[in-house]
Amino acid sequence: MKPLDTFPPRHLGSSSEDIDSMVDYLGYEDLEALIDDVVPEGIRDCRALNLPSALTESEAAFALRKRMRQNEIFRSFIGAGYYDCLTPPVIQRNILENPGWYTAYTPYQAEIAQGRLEALLNFQTLVTELTGLDVANASLLDEATAAAEAMAMAMHGKPGRTFFVSEKCHPQTIDVIQTRAEPIGVRLVVGDHAAFAVEETEGLLGVLLQYPCTDGAVLDYSDFIARVKVKRGVAVVAADLLSLTLLRPPGEFGADIAVGSAQRFGVPMGFGGPHAAFIACSDALKRKLPGRLVGVSHDAQGNRAYRLALQTREQHIRRDKATSNICTAQVLLAVMAASYAVYHGPKGLKAIARRIHALTLHLAKALDELPHCVVDSPLFFDTLRVSVKNGTAQEVLEKARLRKVNLRLLDEKSVGIALDETTTVEQLAELVEVFGGDLNTFSSVVDDDEPDLPNFARRSTLYLQQEVFNAYHTETEMLRYLHRLECRDLALNRSMIPLGSCTMKLNATSEMLALSWPEVMQLHPFAPPEQWEGYRDFFTELEDWLAEITGFDSVSLQPNAGSQGEYAGLLAIRRYHESRGESDRTVCLIPTSAHGTNPASAAMMGFKVVPVRCDEDGNIDVADLKIKIEENASQLAALMVTYPSTHGVFETAIQEICEDVHHAGGQVYMDGANMNAQVGLCRPGKIGADVCHLNLHKTFCIPHGGGGPGVGPIGVAQHLSAFLPGHRELDEEQGVVCAAPYGSASILTISWMYIAMMGSQSLTDATKLAILNANYIARRLEDFFPVLYRGETGLVAHECIIDLRPCREEAGIEVEDVAKRLIDYGYHAPTMSWPVAGTLMIEPTESESKAEIDRFCDALISIYGEIRAVAHGEADREDNVLKGAPHTAEILTTDAWDRSYSREQAAFPAPWLKGNKFWPAVGRIDNVYGDRNLVCTCDSVDAYAEEVSS
Amino acid sequence: MKPLDTFPPRHLGSSSEDIDSMVDYLGYEDLEALIDDVVPEGIRDCRALNLPSALTESEAAFALRKRMRQNEIFRSFIGAGYYDCLTPPVIQRNILENPGWYTAYTPYQAEIAQGRLEALLNFQTLVTELTGLDVANASLLDEATAAAEAMAMAMHGKPGRTFFVSEKCHPQTIDVIQTRAEPIGVRLVVGDHAAFAVEETEGLLGVLLQYPCTDGAVLDYSDFIARVKVKRGVAVVAADLLSLTLLRPPGEFGADIAVGSAQRFGVPMGFGGPHAAFIACSDALKRKLPGRLVGVSHDAQGNRAYRLALQTREQHIRRDKATSNICTAQVLLAVMAASYAVYHGPKGLKAIARRIHALTLHLAKALDELPHCVVDSPLFFDTLRVSVKNGTAQEVLEKARLRKVNLRLLDEKSVGIALDETTTVEQLAELVEVFGGDLNTFSSVVDDDEPDLPNFARRSTLYLQQEVFNAYHTETEMLRYLHRLECRDLALNRSMIPLGSCTMKLNATSEMLALSWPEVMQLHPFAPPEQWEGYRDFFTELEDWLAEITGFDSVSLQPNAGSQGEYAGLLAIRRYHESRGESDRTVCLIPTSAHGTNPASAAMMGFKVVPVRCDEDGNIDVADLKIKIEENASQLAALMVTYPSTHGVFETAIQEICEDVHHAGGQVYMDGANMNAQVGLCRPGKIGADVCHLNLHKTFCIPHGGGGPGVGPIGVAQHLSAFLPGHRELDEEQGVVCAAPYGSASILTISWMYIAMMGSQSLTDATKLAILNANYIARRLEDFFPVLYRGETGLVAHECIIDLRPCREEAGIEVEDVAKRLIDYGYHAPTMSWPVAGTLMIEPTESESKAEIDRFCDALISIYGEIRAVAHGEADREDNVLKGAPHTAEILTTDAWDRSYSREQAAFPAPWLKGNKFWPAVGRIDNVYGDRNLVCTCDSVDAYAEEVSS
Repeated sequence: MKPLDTFPPRHLGSSSEDIDSMVDYLGYEDLEALIDDVVPEGIRDCRALNLPSALTESEAAFALRKRMRQNEIFRSFIGAGYYDCLTPPVIQRNILENPGWYTAYTPYQAEIAQGRLEALLNFQTLVTELTGLDVANASLLDEATAAAEAMAMAMHGKPGRTFFVSEKCHPQTIDVIQTRAEPIGVRLVVGDHAAFAVEETEGLLGVLLQYPCTDGAVLDYSDFIARVKVKRGVAVVAADLLSLTLLRPPGEFGADIAVGSAQRFGVPMGFGGPHAAFIACSDALKRKLPGRLVGVSHDAQGNRAYRLALQTREQHIRRDKATSNICTAQVLLAVMAASYAVYHGPKGLKAIARRIHALTLHLAKALDELPHCVVDSPLFFDTLRVSVKNGTAQEVLEKARLRKVNLRLLDEKSVGIALDETTTVEQLAELVEVFGGDLNTFSSVVDDDEPDLPNFARRSTLYLQQEVFNAYHTETEMLRYLHRLECRDLALNRSMIPLGSCTMKLNATSEMLALSWPEVMQLHPFAPPEQWEGYRDFFTELEDWLAEITGFDSVSLQPNAGSQGEYAGLLAIRRYHESRGESDRTVCLIPTSAHGTNPASAAMMGFKVVPVRCDEDGNIDVADLKIKIEENASQLAALMVTYPSTHGVFETAIQEICEDVHHAGGQVYMDGANMNAQVGLCRPGKIGADVCHLNLHKTFCIPHGGGGPGVGPIGVAQHLSAFLPGHRELDEEQGVVCAAPYGSASILTISWMYIAMMGSQSLTDATKLAILNANYIARRLEDFFPVLYRGETGLVAHECIIDLRPCREEAGIEVEDVAKRLIDYGYHAPTMSWPVAGTLMIEPTESESKAEIDRFCDALISIYGEIRAVAHGEADREDNVLKGAPHTAEILTTDAWDRSYSREQAAFPAPWLKGNKFWPAVGRIDNVYGDRNLVCTCDSVDAYAEEVSS
Repeated sequence: MKPLDTFPPRHLGSSSEDIDSMVDYLGYEDLEALIDDVVPEGIRDCRALNLPSALTESEAAFALRKRMRQNEIFRSFIGAGYYDCLTPPVIQRNILENPGWYTAYTPYQAEIAQGRLEALLNFQTLVTELTGLDVANASLLDEATAAAEAMAMAMHGKPGRTFFVSEKCHPQTIDVIQTRAEPIGVRLVVGDHAAFAVEETEGLLGVLLQYPCTDGAVLDYSDFIARVKVKRGVAVVAADLLSLTLLRPPGEFGADIAVGSAQRFGVPMGFGGPHAAFIACSDALKRKLPGRLVGVSHDAQGNRAYRLALQTREQHIRRDKATSNICTAQVLLAVMAASYAVYHGPKGLKAIARRIHALTLHLAKALDELPHCVVDSPLFFDTLRVSVKNGTAQEVLEKARLRKVNLRLLDEKSVGIALDETTTVEQLAELVEVFGGDLNTFSSVVDDDEPDLPNFARRSTLYLQQEVFNAYHTETEMLRYLHRLECRDLALNRSMIPLGSCTMKLNATSEMLALSWPEVMQLHPFAPPEQWEGYRDFFTELEDWLAEITGFDSVSLQPNAGSQGEYAGLLAIRRYHESRGESDRTVCLIPTSAHGTNPASAAMMGFKVVPVRCDEDGNIDVADLKIKIEENASQLAALMVTYPSTHGVFETAIQEICEDVHHAGGQVYMDGANMNAQVGLCRPGKIGADVCHLNLHKTFCIPHGGGGPGVGPIGVAQHLSAFLPGHRELDEEQGVVCAAPYGSASILTISWMYIAMMGSQSLTDATKLAILNANYIARRLEDFFPVLYRGETGLVAHECIIDLRPCREEAGIEVEDVAKRLIDYGYHAPTMSWPVAGTLMIEPTESESKAEIDRFCDALISIYGEIRAVAHGEADREDNVLKGAPHTAEILTTDAWDRSYSREQAAFPAPWLKGNKFWPAVGRIDNVYGDRNLVCTCDSVDAYAEEVSS
């Protein structure tokens, strides 16, 4: 008699009839028999997961809200990189709450991702313009890791090993850099930059300065930076983006790199994340930028087109040669921040900054005249350091809390107060009252004039003069602009996105609801613990559930991307070995089939990567592994292994492999990218892994957001529990990997809802269905394309790899041609040429219906026919529907049609396209041109036109 | 120092630079000078509106929420036509909260409205299937007015004047019918149907029965209805749609008409609305159906296509010959309800109904065994009548309220309890406790079996077997289906919709936010007054503001559409005359230029319509008016006048006209459709009107929802205040016009937010800008198309009419050709051939930017060139871009292109279309075919294919 809004039938794509028919097609009696043949007996874990019974959609939403309402939302004046702000409703509803934006995948298929690529170019332009630097990437994870990435950039090609960090940086930034520095042998000097002996320092890699300082002071760094440059050090400035609308930008006082957070550009604090961090650099350093970079190019018809640039540049995960393991961005949040800037424009942003500054001046003046405190800040933007003359800073904080106001404790006698876009004069009055004063006795500050800043600090250069930042300031225009961008992108709300290893399953609305709740979104990550009781219960529950699902002892939710999870996992292993006096264990075995992030993470951990061969079936070559273990036994730190393998196979030898590693004293790191094939069937911790990261944005329903956010918690066995990431806010400062104690806390609600609504049985059903769907696809396609890599029983796990190399040999058709042709059929291509060049890796997930899977197979089979036509000489080898794909409406309606095939063939090759055609915004994009003529910011359209025609 | 999220710059489309440039183009010094020339001096009201100062977006949202949090949300078991329900989140987010759905206009341009037309066809199918009748319309306003419409249908061509209404109908339905019956001379008999002497009743028009009864009883009406039929009476059954998944449908026991509400199909109660009511009838009555009807036809290429059917059928507002003034529907809500059925399917709906029924059985069993009460219901679906043996029913209600539970007071000793989709076993236990029992002592009812219903009440026929109700039951499939439909429709999120007299302005996100708040949406309209304190304050405020804006004494928010506003306004006039002993005042003067609704409303009020001529400029012919007044002086009830006129002109004689009417003892009814030209400049009450209705969905930002909901409050002068609509929930049972006391209460929040965020100054600025934009368009187009109807100064008001009749003469091009060609340019056509055949009436509103207005003018000017080409013989008179429009992608990519013009000309006639092309889903629709072969429900695709090919 429970309510009938049960979630599993909404999440699982096929009815039991469809399941029966697929099972039957595969020649099995029932699904259970198929699963028995897929999952090796030894690792199968048949006991039900010990999770609470599934709640219905409304029950789960109610339960989550009940927990979260235990949180107390105080007005936050804490600052330190996190500020309350006003999300324009048009952005909240049409981006953050819009599946057209949040369910999109990373823009690898640029022709059907022009909308978010344009939005990201806006983001990059926003960052370069405000920082005064040349190039910015499409976002990083948070300010602290961005600073760590900048430090890594500073190391490039330099023999030195000393990096200076100003003590005026945000504490969490210093903590993360400290974590990152040690394994790669960087000596950190943390201190007062004015006292730092630049000239006497040998091997100075660079310096990190905060601007304005964490306590609010705006300092003149130009001389200091000039001295650093003489020593060939790289100057990194962590800057507040909003302040740069008024303050002289880092690029103008010598910074080589600027990092920071774009959070306050309309993205709620969310108890720590997700937000888009930024990194910008001078032109000289651009090829060392980590992460993703959007660039301008043109399509085959010469139209302006965007795509990810420099995919082959040095930083693009060159395995153990990489200096960064970043492979994602915070796209959804970067899109929001960029759109905030588009909506406000340069004048609007400046007005916001000026208002905040004027309020801060007003507050400073009022407080400074009080007998009991002194404002220590000589020059500031929005943050004050206030010294308490009577009593302690803690007492002031407690007084403030009585008014539901949070201030920042800087030291025993000093309080920090950071104002923001939402601050009102009434709140100012309250703040003055906290210090025993009365604001009414002070005349108000007028913000009509330019702020009175000294020369070194005053911005004199224009910014954001590009058309896009000056055209959409009414809601109507903004709505249409966002809609226009959205319409250019193919997301999960249109069709299946069968990305192998990326698990593009349903991101259900119920799972997304909490991201619109103030009690989830408006908490500062450094709010006192008694204010986030709701979050605490919630974290504990989610940690317990994930530990149960993975078979581990404990879980850390801090890593805010898969890459950070890998880092945190390897760090735990490293610290474990060290704790046992075995710090010489630095060899990391990694199969050649591994994702590039694995060796990159290992390298960042200071490990030596030793590759392990794979056999023809894509499995680890156990013999080679044994040799490598033996060769490195005393130094063996870890084996990194993906399970099921990156080839989509449940390797039967996995337990033996783990045992061998353990026997040699090593630890097993399991990459959880393929966890969607394991949930409820087997558990990494029971198979033998010691650590495993989970991609919550794959298996646990956090949407890909068009290329981020991701979340990568780790689970560890008991002996590693002590080495999970800490955070100063949790009174444990070791192993900090992210800026916020719980990383991207707010979006963890998505995974919580998923697990709460599915329960043990349906989570397991989902895994089985995902495996069934993959095997169904493999069987449907195998007569047309060879299916590579199967398990011993001839079955695949939750994804399958089809081989297109014969198409190249017989017809000159490349994987890319098939991928682009799929667009004409309304589909996003599967993973291209990974893990094996010349193949497509298809992962259907459990959320796709048999009807949709059949359509997708029909599309590929139809394309097979098109390829055969080329092979048989019925179609031209160059002038054919595949090489000509994708076909835009403009191409197809041109009067000058001169192709050898018909327009109908090009446009409507399948019956389902009638009445449901998705048109790509541009034709095939020229990547080479874009990389040779790298343009990574919005330019005036005129300038671009000149460039193309020249 | 206020926060910077001020709303007016977001709402108003043009910057001051653009305004200056438009003013300059029109040859004026400044905007004020232009306005002085537009608005006749005598009526201009220069004092600022007395409204609170404008709040910023966040301030207004906060203020509204603060008010609404005063509401108390109790669990409602009141029933009586309103039930709590679960809105599937995928529907809430992707329809209710999606501008792609809510900003669309009425689907008159069917080629760019195929999405909502399909959804409405689903609605019609849902209703016919569940009621067992042949034809259903696309929704009505509420159950009570639907019942009144059914009564009007029953009158058709019959001499009789008696209509029987069962006392077991919902009380508000009886009240509305009572209001409606009197003016048209229908004698109502309200009573027990079993005691009603059918055979002895002379002139029986028909009967209205409730099924199940308002107190829950399921009665066998078949014999009674058979007897009514013998007397040639029409049997109307007001039915609960959900119950019909289990109960024998009205169509199977003889009903000719079924009415009811689809609210509980996923639409929140919203303190009364809006919801979609339904009306269905037998085939014999279909041409008498009021409101809108969607039908199936095909396009010029033979593809299945939907459009509004029978636009010329009897009920389509034939001025004073009409028997209904309904001209809108509740499209957005009908789309939600239909989508709820699509998502659940027949099995899901039945499961929901069965669960509710099983819970009700369980409750009945438990209560019946208690010593202190008796369950009086012999047979029921979800509602029980419980008699109290000790104490009073009121005492039980009070006990329940202590548990935050609302029950229904049926009479002194009887309580009604209605269960719904959200009811849980825990709540059942609470209900039993209210009556002093313990549910645990009763064994639970199992809902595994078909409910044990007697033959007369058991549904044996299948329903909803159509594919659409059986294909989209997972969230992924549902999301894609909704998105597919959305993509077929052109809404305000794509481009300007310049509908004359429809004021398609921005529907800002901030204005829409409250529709997602439980404290606004989850209130039952008959909850006790102390639970809606928040709403009360809010209503009072909004009434005051609207009274101030219109210059009236008081305002009623009850009318839930413009048509209801007209009705309520005329009713107030009628009752006023009656109160003065002048009930013979029944003549209503209406200018010939008036909208058809005006005479229709007058006819429904029992008024005799006397037309008044208009002069060449579209103004009322004052001389003719004076004659008509004189001729009818003693019988003059009212003049109905639209201001500015339906021709978009501020008539200078308006005050004289009002004085003349008053002098003769008549009242002036002002149609507020064009209020957007008045706000802040002049006030109906001050001009001389006695009543005016406002279209909140025009001037005050309630979105059109694709064809509803609308809201039509009325303002009245002091002497009419006593005659505003009452409601039994407000202890005033006279003049009830809608089912709920405050009509569509929830969406009033939209208008409240608009006024609160704009304030006096910006509301006035909006009016001025709307007028400027219209005049700018008139000037830009006048060299190409004659601009008809201007004021004495050569200026128009807020809209302008361009004449296309020369195009027909010179080139054979019809208005429709231009309208369809505009689709190729990415635009929705302006109002076609109204108020003058062969013209287009263009209304830009203040929210459109100069850039967008210029694009639209460029489109029309470009079309002008295309028409000239035909006129000059450069293009064929039949085979040209206009007659061939709109052009779908399928048409344009066909290999068999045989048109005399090029594909590029057809597809991309303007530069802005590159990269921003909206493709119509179908080509030109064949209306005649559809009306000749009327199909108004989903059919199997096979069946349709047969029909077309035959």
